[in-house]
Amino acid sequence: MEGDKCDPDRPAHPGIFPAGEAGQSERPSPGRSVDFPVSVVLPAGGTGERTGLQTPKQFCSFLGRPLISYTIRAFERVSWIQSIVVVVAKENMDLMTDIIQRFQHRKVRVVPGGLTRHRSICNGVLALGEREKVEEERLPADRPKVVIIHDAVRPFVEEDFLYKIAMAAKEQGAAGAIRPLVSTVIATTSEGYLDHSLERAKYRASEMPQGFTYDVIHQAYQRCAESDFEFGTECLHLALQYCGTNAKLIEGPPTLWKVTYKRDLAAAESIIKETLSQSACVITGGSAEAVTLADALQKAAGALDMELDVLTDLMEDKGRYLLKEWNFIRVSVNRSCLSEVESILMDLEAANRALLHPVVVIWVHLSSSAELSVSGTMPEPAAIMDLASAAKLRNILLYGIQLHQSKDTERWESSVMKVAEITSALIRERSPALVGQLLQA
Amino acid sequence: MEGDKCDPDRPAHPGIFPAGEAGQSERPSPGRSVDFPVSVVLPAGGTGERTGLQTPKQFCSFLGRPLISYTIRAFERVSWIQSIVVVVAKENMDLMTDIIQRFQHRKVRVVPGGLTRHRSICNGVLALGEREKVEEERLPADRPKVVIIHDAVRPFVEEDFLYKIAMAAKEQGAAGAIRPLVSTVIATTSEGYLDHSLERAKYRASEMPQGFTYDVIHQAYQRCAESDFEFGTECLHLALQYCGTNAKLIEGPPTLWKVTYKRDLAAAESIIKETLSQSACVITGGSAEAVTLADALQKAAGALDMELDVLTDLMEDKGRYLLKEWNFIRVSVNRSCLSEVESILMDLEAANRALLHPVVVIWVHLSSSAELSVSGTMPEPAAIMDLASAAKLRNILLYGIQLHQSKDTERWESSVMKVAEITSALIRERSPALVGQLLQA
Repeated sequence: MEGDKCDPDRPAHPGIFPAGEAGQSERPSPGRSVDFPVSVVLPAGGTGERTGLQTPKQFCSFLGRPLISYTIRAFERVSWIQSIVVVVAKENMDLMTDIIQRFQHRKVRVVPGGLTRHRSICNGVLALGEREKVEEERLPADRPKVVIIHDAVRPFVEEDFLYKIAMAAKEQGAAGAIRPLVSTVIATTSEGYLDHSLERAKYRASEMPQGFTYDVIHQAYQRCAESDFEFGTECLHLALQYCGTNAKLIEGPPTLWKVTYKRDLAAAESIIKETLSQSACVITGGSAEAVTLADALQKAAGALDMELDVLTDLMEDKGRYLLKEWNFIRVSVNRSCLSEVESILMDLEAANRALLHPVVVIWVHLSSSAELSVSGTMPEPAAIMDLASAAKLRNILLYGIQLHQSKDTERWESSVMKVAEITSALIRERSPALVGQLLQA
Repeated sequence: MEGDKCDPDRPAHPGIFPAGEAGQSERPSPGRSVDFPVSVVLPAGGTGERTGLQTPKQFCSFLGRPLISYTIRAFERVSWIQSIVVVVAKENMDLMTDIIQRFQHRKVRVVPGGLTRHRSICNGVLALGEREKVEEERLPADRPKVVIIHDAVRPFVEEDFLYKIAMAAKEQGAAGAIRPLVSTVIATTSEGYLDHSLERAKYRASEMPQGFTYDVIHQAYQRCAESDFEFGTECLHLALQYCGTNAKLIEGPPTLWKVTYKRDLAAAESIIKETLSQSACVITGGSAEAVTLADALQKAAGALDMELDVLTDLMEDKGRYLLKEWNFIRVSVNRSCLSEVESILMDLEAANRALLHPVVVIWVHLSSSAELSVSGTMPEPAAIMDLASAAKLRNILLYGIQLHQSKDTERWESSVMKVAEITSALIRERSPALVGQLLQA
């Protein structure tokens, strides 16, 4: 939708990628903690038939990374979650192991799934009982007090809500996320006619995550019938029927929705891009002209719902921005040399910043002379293209913007606004096809 | 999602913008026709609270055009639909009238809504009974045999499905779209615990459109109680309860979904953009070098899931492409002059092509000499920027791409591939911030 009409400055999902998300060191989670062991079972055996795609949707890539990696990361960064069991179809075991290595996931074990959803979840629960060592961390995991079951295709689950589910599960034996119904639910006759409609207010959609004490979910699967394994889908129902446990129901945020149809892939991508695009930092190097431009850009970007921080140097404040930010703007004045932007690329690479998401770097070149032919002040298009091609292989998207100093205030302001607009578009779209271009403002 | 992983060559919504969609002359609809009068009531009084936006979602803009205009257009192009009544809140009457004028909608009347959804729909139905003249067309509309009720926020409804609903409504008195449930539906206790879960297979989500004979829906509203007007939402229920009519239920395509949450806005925008981006036509002007490049581009674009048609002239084949296509690529060889692209802009404007959607025009400039300084062969960046700024005001997005002829086959192929990639990105993203840029391939 368009920025000016639809109030996009409300972040849709403020908590998904908090500060330091991809930093090398894991910081303590900001939320409340739980004092009992919690593990996660993530069934990911779906075939994705409802999206109409060949790739099962949990393995579809968003900005170069499979959906399931986003979901794993959402759990991994919660300090009080000790381990995650991902259950995948046998034919996808290698693919899954490869994803875990490539995106450096920890706390994760892969277990082969069964033929139905319940058999897969049951395999995951049983695996948690085996007290196996968690790979990579080499720590023995306690048998969990609470097991959280989630879908691989609901990547935007937040720590706060997981906390509520874990606490309620421990207290009640079972807990599940619910959402209001979007459509009226109707009962149909066998001939395809309306039988009756349900009163919307009395019913809810049952969503994920759900939480259970290990004992309840384990017992439910021990006791349930073959037909439950074959035709059932709802764990809350098993807990009720076989353990007499009435789950506590907790209304979750709309972000819990399940990526089901092809349109949901676009929605998920848009959420990810929006979250990565809310801010950027401008590095000036300290020159007066660069600082003036950066300040003007900061103002202009505000009108485009993007927040800019202005710094002299990226390593300032102990490299906080380097570890936090997804977007960097380097302002150079009268220098055709790209060494300033190369140094940012090296810092980003050293910090492994582009492991989980592509990082955008924009080189803004300000020439203070309006004369285009003055030698030495013009950037060389081929040089930035080569640098960008190399950076792209490391998941860093480099673009250039060129503008000219002008004493005509109106003209200058219009150039600055244009830099802000181009910057905002490049950051929001993250288009790999446009890297290395030197755009004119 | 990424093209290479997720099979985007399956058009999500092949029927939304068929050939000639925005042509000046209305052609007969391609589908089957009905031989009785059908009108539409489009309640559009929602406040959009679930998207978390200030603008009600039916008025949110997608590529410069409000969602409701897409929905109106979906009905307007069905030849057998005689009139559309849009019901909006009193405070939005002017806005709605303005939208109808701006996007040159016909067949449409605006009626003030009531305080609840049922009161609004009822106002719409009563308005249809008044045998008023349809505005603009100045034709007296018959009282319809069948009334189709739809939501303003379900823009992707297709003629085939409307046909099924209209026919079933005429035969049975009432018909409605259904979809399988995505989540299990559960009944909750008043304390917020699970009471029981419904067996998913026996229930369906009730969606829109729904169809009724005029007599059934009119009678239902005449007979129903105050409490129905206040608290009910489901027209099928009224038809059953007050006219004894069991609606025929017809499973609809996933595209019937309702734009409800903020993520749905992104999904809708992505569907619209994808539909506009499936093809383009390349105009060569006939020079041998341009034809060679166009043929190479056609091959390269195939790998990017975009179909290119190569033409000598846009007016060839009686201007069919001019009326059909949303994207145009003009290849110029060794000419810095923009007159070739200006002529396309004029043709597009004369055909009123950019009324409903922004049209993309890409000027590909091929210089056959590798020497950059040869005078006369280089395009002037300022000229294309000026032309693009003017075109943007008329909803045409103009971009430039420059490449150099090379005798080195590998280098040449890589340049052509780059032109294809940049073209595909520009067309898919339709970014207004990047118009007028001269990109390098």
